[in-house]
Amino acid sequence: MRHARVVYNGSIHHAVEEGGRVKLNDGRLLDETDVAWLPPVAPRTVFTLGLNYEDHAKELSFSTPKEPLVFLKGPNTFTGHRCRTFRPSDVTFMHYECELAVVIGGTAKNVKKEDACDLVAGYTIANDYVMRDYIENYYRPNLRAKNRDACTPLGPWIVDAEDIRDPMNLTLRTYVNGKITQEGTTADMILGIPELIEYLSSFMTLNSGDLILTGTPKGSVDTKVGDEVVTEIEGIGKLVNTIAGEETLVREKRVNMT
Amino acid sequence: MRHARVVYNGSIHHAVEEGGRVKLNDGRLLDETDVAWLPPVAPRTVFTLGLNYEDHAKELSFSTPKEPLVFLKGPNTFTGHRCRTFRPSDVTFMHYECELAVVIGGTAKNVKKEDACDLVAGYTIANDYVMRDYIENYYRPNLRAKNRDACTPLGPWIVDAEDIRDPMNLTLRTYVNGKITQEGTTADMILGIPELIEYLSSFMTLNSGDLILTGTPKGSVDTKVGDEVVTEIEGIGKLVNTIAGEETLVREKRVNMT
Repeated sequence: MRHARVVYNGSIHHAVEEGGRVKLNDGRLLDETDVAWLPPVAPRTVFTLGLNYEDHAKELSFSTPKEPLVFLKGPNTFTGHRCRTFRPSDVTFMHYECELAVVIGGTAKNVKKEDACDLVAGYTIANDYVMRDYIENYYRPNLRAKNRDACTPLGPWIVDAEDIRDPMNLTLRTYVNGKITQEGTTADMILGIPELIEYLSSFMTLNSGDLILTGTPKGSVDTKVGDEVVTEIEGIGKLVNTIAGEETLVREKRVNMT
Repeated sequence: MRHARVVYNGSIHHAVEEGGRVKLNDGRLLDETDVAWLPPVAPRTVFTLGLNYEDHAKELSFSTPKEPLVFLKGPNTFTGHRCRTFRPSDVTFMHYECELAVVIGGTAKNVKKEDACDLVAGYTIANDYVMRDYIENYYRPNLRAKNRDACTPLGPWIVDAEDIRDPMNLTLRTYVNGKITQEGTTADMILGIPELIEYLSSFMTLNSGDLILTGTPKGSVDTKVGDEVVTEIEGIGKLVNTIAGEETLVREKRVNMT
């Protein structure tokens, strides 16, 4: 089953997918453009992997880190399907990153990789945009590069773990304005999902609703204001995002405040 | 006024300080050892500064970073006054870090440093322990080094901003088993509180309850199992913590699960 959080007629609904459409919990069946999409979970602790695909590390001329390169993302960072992400006016490179996001489904510490699957509630898609200019080196995918407001589209659906036969063998693709620009497979992750859960839970308690963004394969290209960026993962869905200019955000904030 | 969150007789209370004692919102007056202390806020987005005091950077043989070195801490990381922090069995250096924590009191973006004070609700104390062994270089105060469960005592009180005349001129001290081991002043911060608020809010929306941990001056020493570590800030209070062995944690978890 596929789950989402959507806004319809002024209230937030839990929705499931039925025949390609959005079914609200009161039974109404809507088109996906009839609703406004929220991130499918309200993110709590969100772990993001840097350089977890060897081909991506290579295209950036980095060697892969000895210790997993993990950082946290704050709740301000996320936005929904069919929403906009803002391109700062002073950056030269704003790269999308199509990533499989693992949704944790319980509370656990010191999980062995053999048992890690039991802790996964489901999967969704993240587009972990990065303002490449702001990164000084691979040790610091810093706050400015990865934690701007609304810089990480998430969704549209969480797909139940039981519906994904092998999460470590899914094709990832990104399309910019309809043209394919990134293609890879989760089979190429350096640390797979079981290893990541074992590693993180060895020093932090994982909780329901926590997310692990597992990194992106090669194929980074710059995106410009007006681009439509679709990140797609086999069996999970397609996440649509549009790049807007930062001046749009400022203008809208002003309107909201008056 | 000073505010805390405490547990007394099975429920969580908002408390204020009165004559050195803990006054619950129903008027009962208790000693500070009569209650169990929670972090004074339930942390949401928590920013932590690395190397924000020049003398501390020097004692670690690091040059100070060109761009503010900021990372996030997850909610699992915090614990209360008079609680325990666990020392992993495989580390050689577990350093305390006495830090002034700024509590944000509103929602704001693009705040100018001249207006930053208006956004501060109050101040508290953080002891931002670090497992020094786990840091590979200054670009990555990584997750294992700074985000373990209960590794950051916070509290005991939030002191209202209006009660602190000059937050940029407060003495910080740490005592290990009653002996002073760290002394510095917030006047030595590289980026002061107004600059930090301007910097962070230039790309992220700040919200009520967010915290900024502003870094620590020099005076890091190793702490061992059984040590009592008191971090003190002039006008804010004294935060007491005890170091426990990690095997204690494992044993207690087992007991809780049976």
